[in-house]
Amino acid sequence: MAPPLSQRSQSMPQSPIRKLMPYAEQAKAKGIKIFHLNIGQPDVPSPPEFWQAIQGANLKVLEYSHAAGSAELREKVASAYRAMNLPVETKDLIVTTAGSEAVAFAMQVVCDSGDEVIIPEPMYANYIGFSTAVGVRVVPIPTKIEENFALPGIEEFEKRITPKTKAIVICNPGNPTGTVYSDRQLEELADLALAKNLFIISDEVYREFSYLGHPPKSVLQIERLAQHCVMCDSVSKRFSLCGARIGFLVSKNQEVMGAALKYAQARLSPPTLESIGVLGALQAPASYFEGVRAEYKRRRDLLVERLRGIPGVLCPDIQGAFYATVRLPIDDSDRFCQWLLESFNLDGRTVMLAPATGFYETKGSGVDEVRIAYVLKEENLALAMDCLTEALKVYPGTRQAAKL
Amino acid sequence: MAPPLSQRSQSMPQSPIRKLMPYAEQAKAKGIKIFHLNIGQPDVPSPPEFWQAIQGANLKVLEYSHAAGSAELREKVASAYRAMNLPVETKDLIVTTAGSEAVAFAMQVVCDSGDEVIIPEPMYANYIGFSTAVGVRVVPIPTKIEENFALPGIEEFEKRITPKTKAIVICNPGNPTGTVYSDRQLEELADLALAKNLFIISDEVYREFSYLGHPPKSVLQIERLAQHCVMCDSVSKRFSLCGARIGFLVSKNQEVMGAALKYAQARLSPPTLESIGVLGALQAPASYFEGVRAEYKRRRDLLVERLRGIPGVLCPDIQGAFYATVRLPIDDSDRFCQWLLESFNLDGRTVMLAPATGFYETKGSGVDEVRIAYVLKEENLALAMDCLTEALKVYPGTRQAAKL
Repeated sequence: MAPPLSQRSQSMPQSPIRKLMPYAEQAKAKGIKIFHLNIGQPDVPSPPEFWQAIQGANLKVLEYSHAAGSAELREKVASAYRAMNLPVETKDLIVTTAGSEAVAFAMQVVCDSGDEVIIPEPMYANYIGFSTAVGVRVVPIPTKIEENFALPGIEEFEKRITPKTKAIVICNPGNPTGTVYSDRQLEELADLALAKNLFIISDEVYREFSYLGHPPKSVLQIERLAQHCVMCDSVSKRFSLCGARIGFLVSKNQEVMGAALKYAQARLSPPTLESIGVLGALQAPASYFEGVRAEYKRRRDLLVERLRGIPGVLCPDIQGAFYATVRLPIDDSDRFCQWLLESFNLDGRTVMLAPATGFYETKGSGVDEVRIAYVLKEENLALAMDCLTEALKVYPGTRQAAKL
Repeated sequence: MAPPLSQRSQSMPQSPIRKLMPYAEQAKAKGIKIFHLNIGQPDVPSPPEFWQAIQGANLKVLEYSHAAGSAELREKVASAYRAMNLPVETKDLIVTTAGSEAVAFAMQVVCDSGDEVIIPEPMYANYIGFSTAVGVRVVPIPTKIEENFALPGIEEFEKRITPKTKAIVICNPGNPTGTVYSDRQLEELADLALAKNLFIISDEVYREFSYLGHPPKSVLQIERLAQHCVMCDSVSKRFSLCGARIGFLVSKNQEVMGAALKYAQARLSPPTLESIGVLGALQAPASYFEGVRAEYKRRRDLLVERLRGIPGVLCPDIQGAFYATVRLPIDDSDRFCQWLLESFNLDGRTVMLAPATGFYETKGSGVDEVRIAYVLKEENLALAMDCLTEALKVYPGTRQAAKL
């Protein structure tokens, strides 16, 4: 008999995005073309400057980098933040192994086992994983699709604060919602954090993906919050470098930075070669990202138009990131997403979506919602919407009114 | 006033290797050449096949890899293990972000907050960090320099087992000791793990660095231990690829693998580009590593000869890895290592060592011991030993008998 595993391992959620993978593999084996709208893997080319820096590195030995990331990278990143009007000095940041590690470190810096973090839901599913891994309890606050998943009123936060609450975690622009929080809402949240002496952990990896004409306010731009906030960031989305695993943990609070460095030292260093590539990517001209954003804006416009044309579908306003969480006229999103892979195709094509249930900590929520990542070029996105439109006509669990 | 940080952040140890860094930087600023024997960063070139694979990758988008690592890499690594007579199938391993993550995942898979792991000391310092980060208590067992830091008798393990004990962690060959455990000792430990239904987490990243003429026995080769062991590995040392951050968690226990995958999914994927490079490195001919091992054997021989020629120094037998933990005739190893950087030089050169205190969980242990990583070529190692010899003559805290 094998020894039992930990309780935390039993409680760790399976990735809602990856649990459908076996069905996708079976569909592919049958020759069906799958449009992957289930995962935030952009098809946009990474900047040529990234590849050039790698090619030009000319190393003999691939050594550890500094635990906090190379001094050169930290300086250049801090400087890039200042160019975006974020008040960041080199000492205010460490390089992490992607945004994932930045969020995981932030949780550990701030919370002990048994502590609580408040997070609006639907939320990025891995916040639940990072919390569970270190014994922290996620206290969700429901948000409403009819209100474009806006931040809930401050009283909703207040009534969930207990002596165990250590932080409020937000993702802005939001994954999985595409929501950009308003300045006013962020200011109110800042007042609450100060009044209750809590941290705000703000995941801003989609900062540049805003279709409002300007990036959303960063927590780092709320001056009075300097000692109360930790910002998590990544190059994965901005530079289409998901596989580089380079991110940043940023805080003006030097106690936070000192503690984060200890967690960073324990794991030695972020990837060296990809760090060198990112130094290159940072040289990419502004036109690189302007092109990327314009591309995603077109995709968003196409997606919203198509979704709103399907009977029974509720597609909220999407102001940022490259996701939409939408309501479908279906019985069960897990069943529907599996059915799309197992039992459906339109001219040999189908679409893979992420059931929204995995983005809710509250059981039973999200059963008629899916997350759509609009990470494919318009032509493919249109074909994927053809699939979804047809699928909703023939799926046995589609609600009847919508079938008419 | 800023919110308080977590208790775990207060308890997280500072890296014993990195806390001297500011003194090293000051010495360098004064123009002093430092021989870095304080960190396991080899100067051996990484295999050309690694760089060739990177150059030839020709990607446009740097995408996430699979959470468990690419299927190709997993298959090739499993096959490489079988060539080393380790019974590993593809399903028995996942690719981790270096050996560090493999150990961290193993702890989380097996232990809850409040649980205990037993570890012989001196131990790899970051085991304490990984444990602290997830609320696990390290219960140390002292080993003796006079016995070459051999595994303690089984009764020493037995008397430390409590209902909270979940695993015994070993590092074989050992960092920081260079000790290779005997087959008989490993078999006894296996019997104990089976009798008490505990896991053995075995860190075998230095497996190939054995100067006994054969690699040490792996826990994976003890058949009856199949459901009770987790092996952690890395390409960092074998291929001189510390900066690649590619490692492996290996277990025949599929429950362990299923749980490990959930932690892996939460952090999305290991670095993609460096994974591709490692596919190349795996093609390096056997002669690559044979050359590396012969080089380290020469370095070890030089180190041992020089250390044993210094009055008052106790250098045990070193059978593997590229470390030695040695006793010096000094008052305080932290003070001595700092003094080497702050106040000493021999013809403009000095040596940086790691105080052994950081490798002990038992406070007060290791005060007259240092860890020496013999990762420099013989010429530099000899100059470093010149520095150490002279330093011990003039250091104010050297015990008098040794000064004679």
